[in-house]
Amino acid sequence: MCGIFGIYPNKDAARLTYLGLYALQHRGEESAGIVTYDGKKARMHKGMGLVSDVFDEKSIQSLRGELAVGHVRYSTTGSSTIKNMQPFLVSHKKGNIAIAHNGNLTNTTRLKNMMEERGSIFQSTMDSEIIVHLLAKSDKKDKKQKLTEALSQLEGAYSVVLMLDDVLVGARDPHGFRPLCLGKLDGAYVLSSETCALDIIGAKYIRDIEPGEIVLIHKDSIESIKPFPKKKHAICIFEFIYFARPDSNIFGKNVYLTRKCLGKNMAKECPANCDCVVPIPDSGVYAAVGFSQASQLPFEMGIIRNHYVGRTFIQPSQFIRDFRVKIKLNPIKDVLKDKSVAVIEDSIVRGTTSRARIKAIRESGVKQIHMRVSCPPLRFPCFYGIDFPTKKELIASKHSIEWIRDFIGVDSLKYLSLEGMLNAMLLPKEEFCTACFSGDYPAQVSKKFSKNILEK
Amino acid sequence: MCGIFGIYPNKDAARLTYLGLYALQHRGEESAGIVTYDGKKARMHKGMGLVSDVFDEKSIQSLRGELAVGHVRYSTTGSSTIKNMQPFLVSHKKGNIAIAHNGNLTNTTRLKNMMEERGSIFQSTMDSEIIVHLLAKSDKKDKKQKLTEALSQLEGAYSVVLMLDDVLVGARDPHGFRPLCLGKLDGAYVLSSETCALDIIGAKYIRDIEPGEIVLIHKDSIESIKPFPKKKHAICIFEFIYFARPDSNIFGKNVYLTRKCLGKNMAKECPANCDCVVPIPDSGVYAAVGFSQASQLPFEMGIIRNHYVGRTFIQPSQFIRDFRVKIKLNPIKDVLKDKSVAVIEDSIVRGTTSRARIKAIRESGVKQIHMRVSCPPLRFPCFYGIDFPTKKELIASKHSIEWIRDFIGVDSLKYLSLEGMLNAMLLPKEEFCTACFSGDYPAQVSKKFSKNILEK
Amino acid sequence: MCGIFGIYPNKDAARLTYLGLYALQHRGEESAGIVTYDGKKARMHKGMGLVSDVFDEKSIQSLRGELAVGHVRYSTTGSSTIKNMQPFLVSHKKGNIAIAHNGNLTNTTRLKNMMEERGSIFQSTMDSEIIVHLLAKSDKKDKKQKLTEALSQLEGAYSVVLMLDDVLVGARDPHGFRPLCLGKLDGAYVLSSETCALDIIGAKYIRDIEPGEIVLIHKDSIESIKPFPKKKHAICIFEFIYFARPDSNIFGKNVYLTRKCLGKNMAKECPANCDCVVPIPDSGVYAAVGFSQASQLPFEMGIIRNHYVGRTFIQPSQFIRDFRVKIKLNPIKDVLKDKSVAVIEDSIVRGTTSRARIKAIRESGVKQIHMRVSCPPLRFPCFYGIDFPTKKELIASKHSIEWIRDFIGVDSLKYLSLEGMLNAMLLPKEEFCTACFSGDYPAQVSKKFSKNILEK
Amino acid sequence: MCGIFGIYPNKDAARLTYLGLYALQHRGEESAGIVTYDGKKARMHKGMGLVSDVFDEKSIQSLRGELAVGHVRYSTTGSSTIKNMQPFLVSHKKGNIAIAHNGNLTNTTRLKNMMEERGSIFQSTMDSEIIVHLLAKSDKKDKKQKLTEALSQLEGAYSVVLMLDDVLVGARDPHGFRPLCLGKLDGAYVLSSETCALDIIGAKYIRDIEPGEIVLIHKDSIESIKPFPKKKHAICIFEFIYFARPDSNIFGKNVYLTRKCLGKNMAKECPANCDCVVPIPDSGVYAAVGFSQASQLPFEMGIIRNHYVGRTFIQPSQFIRDFRVKIKLNPIKDVLKDKSVAVIEDSIVRGTTSRARIKAIRESGVKQIHMRVSCPPLRFPCFYGIDFPTKKELIASKHSIEWIRDFIGVDSLKYLSLEGMLNAMLLPKEEFCTACFSGDYPAQVSKKFSKNILEK
Repeated sequence: MCGIFGIYPNKDAARLTYLGLYALQHRGEESAGIVTYDGKKARMHKGMGLVSDVFDEKSIQSLRGELAVGHVRYSTTGSSTIKNMQPFLVSHKKGNIAIAHNGNLTNTTRLKNMMEERGSIFQSTMDSEIIVHLLAKSDKKDKKQKLTEALSQLEGAYSVVLMLDDVLVGARDPHGFRPLCLGKLDGAYVLSSETCALDIIGAKYIRDIEPGEIVLIHKDSIESIKPFPKKKHAICIFEFIYFARPDSNIFGKNVYLTRKCLGKNMAKECPANCDCVVPIPDSGVYAAVGFSQASQLPFEMGIIRNHYVGRTFIQPSQFIRDFRVKIKLNPIKDVLKDKSVAVIEDSIVRGTTSRARIKAIRESGVKQIHMRVSCPPLRFPCFYGIDFPTKKELIASKHSIEWIRDFIGVDSLKYLSLEGMLNAMLLPKEEFCTACFSGDYPAQVSKKFSKNILEK
Repeated sequence: MCGIFGIYPNKDAARLTYLGLYALQHRGEESAGIVTYDGKKARMHKGMGLVSDVFDEKSIQSLRGELAVGHVRYSTTGSSTIKNMQPFLVSHKKGNIAIAHNGNLTNTTRLKNMMEERGSIFQSTMDSEIIVHLLAKSDKKDKKQKLTEALSQLEGAYSVVLMLDDVLVGARDPHGFRPLCLGKLDGAYVLSSETCALDIIGAKYIRDIEPGEIVLIHKDSIESIKPFPKKKHAICIFEFIYFARPDSNIFGKNVYLTRKCLGKNMAKECPANCDCVVPIPDSGVYAAVGFSQASQLPFEMGIIRNHYVGRTFIQPSQFIRDFRVKIKLNPIKDVLKDKSVAVIEDSIVRGTTSRARIKAIRESGVKQIHMRVSCPPLRFPCFYGIDFPTKKELIASKHSIEWIRDFIGVDSLKYLSLEGMLNAMLLPKEEFCTACFSGDYPAQVSKKFSKNILEK
Repeated sequence: MCGIFGIYPNKDAARLTYLGLYALQHRGEESAGIVTYDGKKARMHKGMGLVSDVFDEKSIQSLRGELAVGHVRYSTTGSSTIKNMQPFLVSHKKGNIAIAHNGNLTNTTRLKNMMEERGSIFQSTMDSEIIVHLLAKSDKKDKKQKLTEALSQLEGAYSVVLMLDDVLVGARDPHGFRPLCLGKLDGAYVLSSETCALDIIGAKYIRDIEPGEIVLIHKDSIESIKPFPKKKHAICIFEFIYFARPDSNIFGKNVYLTRKCLGKNMAKECPANCDCVVPIPDSGVYAAVGFSQASQLPFEMGIIRNHYVGRTFIQPSQFIRDFRVKIKLNPIKDVLKDKSVAVIEDSIVRGTTSRARIKAIRESGVKQIHMRVSCPPLRFPCFYGIDFPTKKELIASKHSIEWIRDFIGVDSLKYLSLEGMLNAMLLPKEEFCTACFSGDYPAQVSKKFSKNILEK
Repeated sequence: MCGIFGIYPNKDAARLTYLGLYALQHRGEESAGIVTYDGKKARMHKGMGLVSDVFDEKSIQSLRGELAVGHVRYSTTGSSTIKNMQPFLVSHKKGNIAIAHNGNLTNTTRLKNMMEERGSIFQSTMDSEIIVHLLAKSDKKDKKQKLTEALSQLEGAYSVVLMLDDVLVGARDPHGFRPLCLGKLDGAYVLSSETCALDIIGAKYIRDIEPGEIVLIHKDSIESIKPFPKKKHAICIFEFIYFARPDSNIFGKNVYLTRKCLGKNMAKECPANCDCVVPIPDSGVYAAVGFSQASQLPFEMGIIRNHYVGRTFIQPSQFIRDFRVKIKLNPIKDVLKDKSVAVIEDSIVRGTTSRARIKAIRESGVKQIHMRVSCPPLRFPCFYGIDFPTKKELIASKHSIEWIRDFIGVDSLKYLSLEGMLNAMLLPKEEFCTACFSGDYPAQVSKKFSKNILEK
């Protein structure tokens, strides 16, 4: 997963982009980068690590120009990550192109083979680079035609912020998998994955970029085209469940209120007979608030999260059981002892983390644990950008809920139903992609591609 | 403020101390250090920054020995901070001495002058170094006598963990200002400022070190002496209000439950006619939970805290108002808009931060803001280790509550009363130092010292 | 200027290449890099700075494989130097290609335009990248044909070491501007700019790669082709004058002996009536030894060079005159005072450095200074890889020797004649490029290219 | 060994000291430091590594004040070297004291024991710290009396530059083991181990500080006292043989001319029947020049030294024999092949390095090697600051010259005689300490001390 941001025209473009990326940091902690354009020259600074590690005053000052494009990248495995940092910038006879991409393309192998056959050389292993090559290869002089020609060859998920010399471009694929919104700060337009990045710079939210829309932001005007055939909308519901920040609006709707509603629906669908409601912090807090209000059970922050957790950490002593959990979460004995508690989780992926957490909670002397999960069982991998494990690693793809309850070690385990989840949404249910729960993939995927992912 | 930790005897002493310090990180982010002793040689590693930055696998492995003493130090101003890192280690003809100190001595000038007159040389500007010099100067061979002779010359606040060659020592001043507890992990004894550090390594809480007590931990035995005349106990109440971790027990009592009780007492003493209760995260969360439960008003996490905030941050654009607040906290418009809310703060020091926060909350379109503060107005500086500003910078020392309400910009402002605060405590009210609220300083302080602090 | 190195097959390929580059460090201090291939995968490590700064044990160990290609790059101006580090590696559908290039191409603009027009994207501003694109674009399956097709399009100077998957390739342009020799270490073949890199790893010198020759080193065989039309040889004479290490053989001949011979010819052509011969260290030492022997005048190391000179150095005080010289060279008063000395320089470029040096020598109280320069006046820029300044910055392009003598401040100034220089060479005079002295450029250069360089 | 420097009063004191230390870098590569005093406050910056690594523009600018003291420290073994960096600064009730010390005290154990007994605490393991403690302990108000009282308790070797608040002090022990000279730059006085540091800043040499002399430099005056009983002078002859820079004057005499004279005496005492004279660079060059001139044999730089050798270097391949030598020195085959050569070394310590060098030279195909060493066999350790190995590691303490010749592998081996060495000196022979050759130690040394060193 990734976060993308752009702004034009503003004299402080790089600095505002820095702040925007900082607000989008939760969408990717692996690397961060900014490209600017000052009318003549494109400048780039990027590096591995958090936004606050990658940039300093000097690098921000060096990024001159009123147009900026920024990117934060999610931590994935693989050694060659340095060359996969974004934005990806190319300075070419025909001009400068920079891309910040969120999403996964599904026809990359075919496109890349075709272009390498003709002698193109790819620097990275990112599908994002293909978009740049398609733009560079296009003979169209008009930027709208060039964008249409290049993007129409893509399949899969993409929300992109592009710099084409002095034009800032925002675009979403026709299914609209990933979010992208438009804001305004004084005379400048802003593009961002989530509204929390508008808030931090004091920009006003205008609207979301629509599925299949391309927006071109010029120095003193803005254009919108929708050159592609319409497709079924397929908004990622997991952005609401887990990924986005609670204080953000995405796809036009607030995440906190949605999550609270998930909690309310859980209280109705799968109530728990217990003394109090305790969230797994931070992600379980918002559904827990809803659950508590709807069930009239007291809300307690009975597990404390340590926010100093860094990226690197020395190996723990062998004597310390469940160390990875303890380093992050500490259940409060005096709160939990002899209580029957409803523990609220946002989702269960492999089940191993939940199991370790429950073990740590048990040590506090709790009487009963009733786990409630604010989405249905995750059974299918995602082809569109969420970094789930393969199908066989998803615990719910192979096991019954009863088996999982046993494995995790709780007294009762209930998932919110697909219906209950969709009802909590503030948008019509037809708008969503729920493939990870249902297996109904909205966009056609080549057999080879899906096989790779399903079996990897 | 500082966090201190010690363990003996355990083969993984340095690694466990690293984890203990990591759990005590909130007590000091400026520097961290560990000293170990392997029966022959003392080893030290310390550095500026967070525990996870200062140590790596290599440095932990180099810290051989079954006895370890650790320290985290609070960020204060001043350029010469490197030489003020702790533990402070001295290798001397008479043996190795290391100290980790939490608290402030009040008779340092006199002691230091006296010793420098005789030719002693001080490396640092820390009062902690004086304790080491007193120990080194003592001619007593018996360690209990040596400790008694040295510590009896001190006035003010100290909880210390010491290494005297192969003896681990824990001690608290007779007033008992700062916390220090004793735990056990397999055959080893553990000393720690708070119990959260026992939890992370799986140690069992035994009891608190008592005011005026010195505990000597030998390889296979433990001794306790109480050589000093009894003094009035003066436990720091601000540890419960703000400083300690909510999942810790200090002075034998749980912090979360105490804070919840503060919130409950507020709901009774100074209720608010409003739609919901919103904490300033994270420190206001626990009193807000209590306030919500006692007042039957819904609890909402209407303000989100960004946990990526690092130590260094590039200068913000001039266009961004209230930047320092926005970088940390984001009020959720869709939650707060047109609502009347009770905002729960733990305390107000200068008032400028609260003011900026309220301004940011106002931008969300909230209808009314009723601020409730979970302690009385802070009117006096602390001589015993809390790094408050001088008297004149404490907003409540010069201004009425009504004036402060105006300054901060809320519709109503109520503080919890001294009585209400003391009633929330799980210990008798006579046990506490409340000097920062009342001006009643429990330990005599030289005029020169207090003048320095009062007017600095 | 650059240094290049390759070895195959040897289990310690990366480590040996590291040592080879270390020996070639004088050919380029800006950046260093190594690419290896293990039969399946290509690995790369490169960085800015000296070989010993760029590599450590860990990076060398990570460079697995029996084939290695290395490069050191000369310090040039320009901000975007990071992306210009070599070797340049491309992993492509058709295979892995890495290049280490020494020399300057003269038809890059035309080739690059042509390829960008067709949609190719260049990462760097190096002409070396063009060679990789030509190889990637070629449809030839046979590596000899592919190399012939690609290299035949190049004009200008290139000695290259290439990795084409599991084949190590060495090639020199038909003029043979830059050196490249072949050595053998046990079963492995070695390619290197100079023999000093063979010496350090204990490899045996076999022969030089010939102008226009391409050598392909396979795991168990070696092939040579000469597919290009013959051209006039044009060996860079400046490699002997200044650039190569004195302990190296280049183009088959020893540098030290050649420089000593330059000194001998100077003693004959332009003797000096003086008390002793003093070199400007280190580069003037070898000609000075020859001058001393031929003239029977005593050799004195009257100027000492400080070898701690680093790359970065803080600004000197304004009080210190001729600081840049003093930081490197210190004339010995007790040796030079009241003496008449012949000072031996290898060459004069701008004249400003020599001027400052002479000023510093004057302060020692020397009686007379007779400067002798071991090559003719430098009057023309180099198009083939030596980083001379533009024509107008070359002092001898605009000024008479008498004017230069005055400017530098010596009692007499004599340059070795073109004839005297060529006579000192151990190779026939027809073999050399002497364009920088004579303006006779051996390879045709486009007007636009030469204009750029001549006027830059 | 160490280098020391001081200047007062000059507005650029820190910057000039930086340059002075840079010129003295050969006297110590382990650490570097500067202390300044601005009339009110003392400032310090020091670090491990070379002068150019430790300081940057920012640190130099932060070192405000017109008085500066600097130090470079020689690389020795031991892990706790960080706390042994100099200058050693103490800020004390009685004032600020900083010390930069070159030499070794011989009565440290007794002094340290005495002071620790009374409660003093030492930070470092340096004998230099003792001098500071003696100064701090002294009750004398007058600085001359204080210095006399403190320094009179010392035995052994010390040249020191001290800062006592606003007084710069230079002193040498009564034997005068280590050098220290006085210079002048405009209105400021300069103290330095060698004159090369005066040259780099353009200061004028005034005279040497005399053995047993203390010089106090005030803002506008200079005082000299000689409060100690006279002792036999014992100038370190090894400074001339090896340690000092050839362009320096030490003890008032030039090093280059002395070394050349050593070479001339060798040519007379132990001539070699050979084709040419080849130095081991750089230290053998100057004696080789003298040998060549006196013997009329041609001087050849037949072995080239690589000056890129850094401090850290990755482990060489096991295939590379004599790697440590090859990385530094490369014999030139075309120069040495079939020649009979006189190889000039400055000294032989353990013999292992010479052996490896000779092995490498043999590979060049040389016919005969006649090694000539410009001092007598080293048979005794140094108690006064030269970091020789223990007696039993000195090859000449246990073995005959014939045995050493065999071990090293040369055709003949001759050392210069004690007489021949002393005759080459430009000072009377009675002035020198020759203990490392003769075993006649000029200053009394406690049995315990010498036993430690002799057997360590």
